[in-house]
Amino acid sequence: MSNPFQFKNNRLFCEDVDIENFAKTVPTPFYLYSKSEIISNCQSVWDAAAGVDFQPCYALKANYNPTLLKIIRENGFGADIVSGGELFFAEKAGFPADSIVFAGVGKTDSEISMAIKAGIHSINIESAQEMYKVAELAGQLSRKQRIAIRVNPDIEAKTHEYISTGLHTNKFGVSTEEAYNLYLETKKFPQLIADSIHVHIGSQITEESPYLATADFLKSFINKLENQGISIKGLDLGGGIGINYSNALTDKNAPRTYINEILPHYIKAFGSLKVRMFVELGRAIIGSAGLLISKVLIRKETPLKKFMIVDAAMNNLIRPSLYQAKHEIVPVKNTQQKKIKADIVGPVCESGDFLAKNLEIEDLSAGEFIAVGGAGAYGQSQSTNYNLRPTIAEYLVDGSDIKCIFKGRSIQQIAENFEW
Amino acid sequence: MSNPFQFKNNRLFCEDVDIENFAKTVPTPFYLYSKSEIISNCQSVWDAAAGVDFQPCYALKANYNPTLLKIIRENGFGADIVSGGELFFAEKAGFPADSIVFAGVGKTDSEISMAIKAGIHSINIESAQEMYKVAELAGQLSRKQRIAIRVNPDIEAKTHEYISTGLHTNKFGVSTEEAYNLYLETKKFPQLIADSIHVHIGSQITEESPYLATADFLKSFINKLENQGISIKGLDLGGGIGINYSNALTDKNAPRTYINEILPHYIKAFGSLKVRMFVELGRAIIGSAGLLISKVLIRKETPLKKFMIVDAAMNNLIRPSLYQAKHEIVPVKNTQQKKIKADIVGPVCESGDFLAKNLEIEDLSAGEFIAVGGAGAYGQSQSTNYNLRPTIAEYLVDGSDIKCIFKGRSIQQIAENFEW
Repeated sequence: MSNPFQFKNNRLFCEDVDIENFAKTVPTPFYLYSKSEIISNCQSVWDAAAGVDFQPCYALKANYNPTLLKIIRENGFGADIVSGGELFFAEKAGFPADSIVFAGVGKTDSEISMAIKAGIHSINIESAQEMYKVAELAGQLSRKQRIAIRVNPDIEAKTHEYISTGLHTNKFGVSTEEAYNLYLETKKFPQLIADSIHVHIGSQITEESPYLATADFLKSFINKLENQGISIKGLDLGGGIGINYSNALTDKNAPRTYINEILPHYIKAFGSLKVRMFVELGRAIIGSAGLLISKVLIRKETPLKKFMIVDAAMNNLIRPSLYQAKHEIVPVKNTQQKKIKADIVGPVCESGDFLAKNLEIEDLSAGEFIAVGGAGAYGQSQSTNYNLRPTIAEYLVDGSDIKCIFKGRSIQQIAENFEW
Repeated sequence: MSNPFQFKNNRLFCEDVDIENFAKTVPTPFYLYSKSEIISNCQSVWDAAAGVDFQPCYALKANYNPTLLKIIRENGFGADIVSGGELFFAEKAGFPADSIVFAGVGKTDSEISMAIKAGIHSINIESAQEMYKVAELAGQLSRKQRIAIRVNPDIEAKTHEYISTGLHTNKFGVSTEEAYNLYLETKKFPQLIADSIHVHIGSQITEESPYLATADFLKSFINKLENQGISIKGLDLGGGIGINYSNALTDKNAPRTYINEILPHYIKAFGSLKVRMFVELGRAIIGSAGLLISKVLIRKETPLKKFMIVDAAMNNLIRPSLYQAKHEIVPVKNTQQKKIKADIVGPVCESGDFLAKNLEIEDLSAGEFIAVGGAGAYGQSQSTNYNLRPTIAEYLVDGSDIKCIFKGRSIQQIAENFEW
């Protein structure tokens, strides 16, 4: 599928929408999503698993806008949830309960009960205590519940330490030895269907090697379990496939996500293993489909630095500050001006508020617009009202059509939640 | 004033409220504030400036709960705002317009107009363009507006790089040379009252030396201006006075804030200078007055680490993850159990979700409660709904009285903001 974000006559388009023309008609900043890119990413995932018994799930944590959830659901995805709130949104967005998997190290009793009652496909077990808890609550509710014990393979995911999850220094899952013992123990709990395994090694991974190591690990572990008469029918392979943050908007030949580079090989690595496979992808589905559009407020210089102060800030997109993420940032109208090296910063009153540092970018003036690439995932979902800045709107492009899919949340609405 | 947070018979109290007893009656996690601590901090600020023409301002960015704003206003504080949203909250909370100062590098035209129309005391000028803009808009509105040019003194504040603001590598203010030229230029704009200076070097500063250096810098700058016939009548000294994050809950003799250690000396350093002085304090007023109370969900071990998984997470308090902040964390009931070294982590699905790493703490079990100290500032104000976790409630203690001052925001309320 061709890139929905392309420069035509030096003007950036989202599908058939001229971004600058649109940005002039609405308040900035805002998020802008491409429907075709979401569908294209979903299709790449299905293509990677052709011929395999397969259920891809969408990780709601990346972006929980209901309109986007419905597009992803319509493309055959289930839901990967991590909280009672995400269960509520997943059900409300129409994901069938039996396509929902529930991970997370700190599920509360009430969240577990909600999930069992809803009849979700699987609860991923992150500790022994949690397995006993699920057994206890399923028993009380007279329900059978499938579980997938999350095995922590102690594999380095080669990503930012904050989003690496498959090491023994991380809080996630249980060790191979503990998982093995827990599977043996499940025989005592008839209310647990313990025929599945879960693994998830991290996020924003751009190489196949950690996945291939994970596949080797899983095959050997499954063998070990089968030798004990424990038959594995479901394999939740996790997610974490990365996107191209550096040049997806400007290099037509660059991949936008690493789905094609990773997923077919990961799945193929299991050979003819007869299991139903699940993946949990958030960023790889929605990340490359979103832009954050912002207006330049002031071009400013100090004796040591050039700054472009824009109206988007760390409260809208915290990834640069929190994960040192380097998002591609381009003017929506490329006027071929000379480039400068500048920090792109927002109006929030701290130096941690930046979108990019020392970025080579055209020397824009107040009133011009920038597009921040790869902003579809972990953008709005991690947004705050810090500095009492409103929550911004979200728009969806479908061909030449554009519609508002979230109006944002104004300061007046925020105020209404308080007693005055 | 004595510490409102004290262990009595090994049970942590907030003023006269037994925290565990209260925590058992409401959903966790939640924020808990002490009214007496807020008042005591306000009083310390007034005491530091005895005999000086003085207007302390409260930096709303630290915490904008309206009930807390009103307590601070009633203690004689004005408001330090950084956005139109904060102006709206400050006015609604009853801060007199002429006690409001407005900083921030990216003020929009509409924010500047709102501020001029409201008649606020001063707009702090962060760039030449902004000064011209204020002059233009004040002219259009036929109003006179006081400005304070924010001078960036290029002084190292000895704090986290994200909250250092007084260096030439930071986006804030203008250099001495530029400020000097701008003050001369203000003579051209009769609608500007350019009789004030603003400086602010950073946040969470615990030593007086950077402040004394700032005072020296300002005195010399004021002299230089007065030699040009520019008389300075108002001095906004900034804020940034830190709090004790490490042992304020457990060491009765430790300071809780550094107000007394810093502010009297900073003010005294100006000698007999005849100006009205302003300070802008957020964290120093509200930081030590707040706790984040959370329940232990699971005690878990991996082959390499011990984890205490609690129901508060990075979405409630991002400071440990974003600023590597080390908050004091104690059990609300000290049962003198053996201590372990553990990571205190939340349920959010990433390794960046932690409240403390390698913390020495009593070995608590599921169902026991912890208190995170120094959580009054930049806690709730930087909170998110990441992982679709609700916004949590806030309570205020006044003696033996406790009342809810924010009900939180449920997942159902969040869902209502979207089209389904």
